[in-house]
Amino acid sequence: MVTVNENYLKLRGSYLFSEIGRRVNTFAAEHPDKKVIRLGIGDVTQPLAPAIIKALHEAVDEMGAAETFRGYAPDLGYEFLRKTISEQDYKARGCQIEADEIFVSDGAKSDSGNIQEIFGADNRIAVCDPVYPVYVDTNVMAGRTGSFDEEKGLWSDVIYMPCTAQNGFAPELPAKTPDLIYLCFPNNPTGAVVTKAVLQEWVDYANKNGAVIIYDAAYEAYISEDNIPHSIYECEGARECAIELHSFSKNAGFTGLRLGYTVIPKDLKRQGVMLHSLWARRHGTKYNGAPYIVQRAGEAVYSEEGKKQVTAQVAAYMKNASYILDGLKAAGYTVSGGVNAPYIWMKTPDGMDSWEFFDHLLKTANVVGTPGAGFGPSGEGYFRLTAFGKYEDTVEAIERIKRM
Amino acid sequence: MVTVNENYLKLRGSYLFSEIGRRVNTFAAEHPDKKVIRLGIGDVTQPLAPAIIKALHEAVDEMGAAETFRGYAPDLGYEFLRKTISEQDYKARGCQIEADEIFVSDGAKSDSGNIQEIFGADNRIAVCDPVYPVYVDTNVMAGRTGSFDEEKGLWSDVIYMPCTAQNGFAPELPAKTPDLIYLCFPNNPTGAVVTKAVLQEWVDYANKNGAVIIYDAAYEAYISEDNIPHSIYECEGARECAIELHSFSKNAGFTGLRLGYTVIPKDLKRQGVMLHSLWARRHGTKYNGAPYIVQRAGEAVYSEEGKKQVTAQVAAYMKNASYILDGLKAAGYTVSGGVNAPYIWMKTPDGMDSWEFFDHLLKTANVVGTPGAGFGPSGEGYFRLTAFGKYEDTVEAIERIKRM
Repeated sequence: MVTVNENYLKLRGSYLFSEIGRRVNTFAAEHPDKKVIRLGIGDVTQPLAPAIIKALHEAVDEMGAAETFRGYAPDLGYEFLRKTISEQDYKARGCQIEADEIFVSDGAKSDSGNIQEIFGADNRIAVCDPVYPVYVDTNVMAGRTGSFDEEKGLWSDVIYMPCTAQNGFAPELPAKTPDLIYLCFPNNPTGAVVTKAVLQEWVDYANKNGAVIIYDAAYEAYISEDNIPHSIYECEGARECAIELHSFSKNAGFTGLRLGYTVIPKDLKRQGVMLHSLWARRHGTKYNGAPYIVQRAGEAVYSEEGKKQVTAQVAAYMKNASYILDGLKAAGYTVSGGVNAPYIWMKTPDGMDSWEFFDHLLKTANVVGTPGAGFGPSGEGYFRLTAFGKYEDTVEAIERIKRM
Repeated sequence: MVTVNENYLKLRGSYLFSEIGRRVNTFAAEHPDKKVIRLGIGDVTQPLAPAIIKALHEAVDEMGAAETFRGYAPDLGYEFLRKTISEQDYKARGCQIEADEIFVSDGAKSDSGNIQEIFGADNRIAVCDPVYPVYVDTNVMAGRTGSFDEEKGLWSDVIYMPCTAQNGFAPELPAKTPDLIYLCFPNNPTGAVVTKAVLQEWVDYANKNGAVIIYDAAYEAYISEDNIPHSIYECEGARECAIELHSFSKNAGFTGLRLGYTVIPKDLKRQGVMLHSLWARRHGTKYNGAPYIVQRAGEAVYSEEGKKQVTAQVAAYMKNASYILDGLKAAGYTVSGGVNAPYIWMKTPDGMDSWEFFDHLLKTANVVGTPGAGFGPSGEGYFRLTAFGKYEDTVEAIERIKRM
């Protein structure tokens, strides 16, 4: 008699964005006359840049001709893309990451969910609180998190690192020593960043304790200030303790195209085993490579034209971020983020909890955001707005909030 | 201190197709004048059909315009594709599979590797021997297979179902009762099929024992004879015990485009839990949907033009299969498969073992095939040739083998 993976049954009933979708759909059905503006889920709205579209068309034509047709891609990614990433995202910044240390995939969500598989079931994970739900949920599925305390909203075997106004939404080194440390900077959901000096402390801490840092750099393209590291490999010793995840979703609008990559330096070993080999084996066994046409699209992001175009897209989103930040500040709200990240983290007003504020904002201003509590208990009393909307919608949303 | 997933360390050193690649590359480097013909790995060679190319170009254009741009796809697949699959692959055959029982993915390799995750660690799996290596390897990674017996080439906790000349390469009901049963028809690597009556016995057996069948139908499009089921849901009671995997790789040449789907009927429950819900949760948490443009390409496979074109492609490959089958028979070899499948399974001559024959064929005829032993101990003494080559190459390969 088959048994099911009982860890799945421990997962919280409704996924955050499903619950948001449900509430928004109910409201929209009851008020068909209202124009709802969605600044909730982190999905982009600008179309793919012309250089990317051109590369896609060219690659599609190649797939239609016998001489240029491509079948199975190399499991770990085409050399043309891995080499470009190595040169432009790493070597140009002084980070020694080689092409064969880069694993191309269908996105950072898959990679951030799957990476835990190469580690033993007995490892203790540490996460920021609030946090992107995928890091925790995939460890729940793997049985690493113990039992859930409904009262506190915490898993018994997870080490939480609260990110609050007191610490500027940057985690402190945890009291208990973790084995796997998930860090995401610029942060989703708070939009916080850390300086290179602070990140170096984490690298040193991991190396001292034999821990591994899973560093999610999905929002790296939004960094606008100096001295904020774009990659953890800017820190000394990171090749011995860090895995870095990248996405093409937010810097180049690939949310619907799916492309990402993970870096595992060959110097990263535990129990005498290169983690690089384990991940290569996982990719080879459970994955069959990202589509050729999408990898060509990824390459186009790094072309001269492509770089100009995606930089302009990011700038447009950051114009939204500034508008939200300034508008909310002017209206008397307490806000942070939005300078090096496309997320604005606001304190809910009048002691409302974050779901109350969600409902209030939806009903009064017809604006959708994300309740901070959905990201963890320390997110309670906060609310996330994204800069990925259209400019005119963003302006209107802020005007409506100001009038509330 | 981080520990690694030690189950990974139990995996056999070199993956079958890596070892083949290594030997072929060595030979090619030593004999640059020889034209090596590859009938080894099951990769297609015909370009994507015109209807698919057209759909891709149109979808790419949509992604380049603000009004038609699509961001995140629905986790489980676009409705337009799920509905088309439900109608054309199932309802048209009298199988009641609804659109919301279909999960679109990046391919059957990923799905066949990931599906085991929703089951408990204590389940006993049964596989055919020989078998597609992904089924076993992913269960090794999950710790379900016990220890490896180097002598016998078998895992201690796996139930093997030998597929030999004696049973027509069709497995018999196993003596020990398994929990999860992997079946693949038309079969990779043997090219064998089972009748609907025989498949019904498996469904009845699974229902009687509370087992779940994971039915890999990746080669369904190659069935040419009547009374061979195209889907396990043609059998009564399969909605209560079977998961079915499909690929667009072999029927429509998507090996480099990546698209597949998995069916989990809502009637399939164990311990009171719908497996459908577990897989939906996995998809939602660890996956972010197949690219919009690729899903539109998948839809085009079912258009009137698309169907004509991909049917012609399959017919071209089956012309190769017939040529191989007839040619080898005429040359005195013992062969099977190749009638309802793109794979020809031949007995190695003169008592050679399958790697010996591999080397012999490579050196003497400069033809690459796949040693049967790579698929399991019962594959020893056999050799797989694929029909996915170009026609003229296939003809030349067979002429060379005849001359050996």
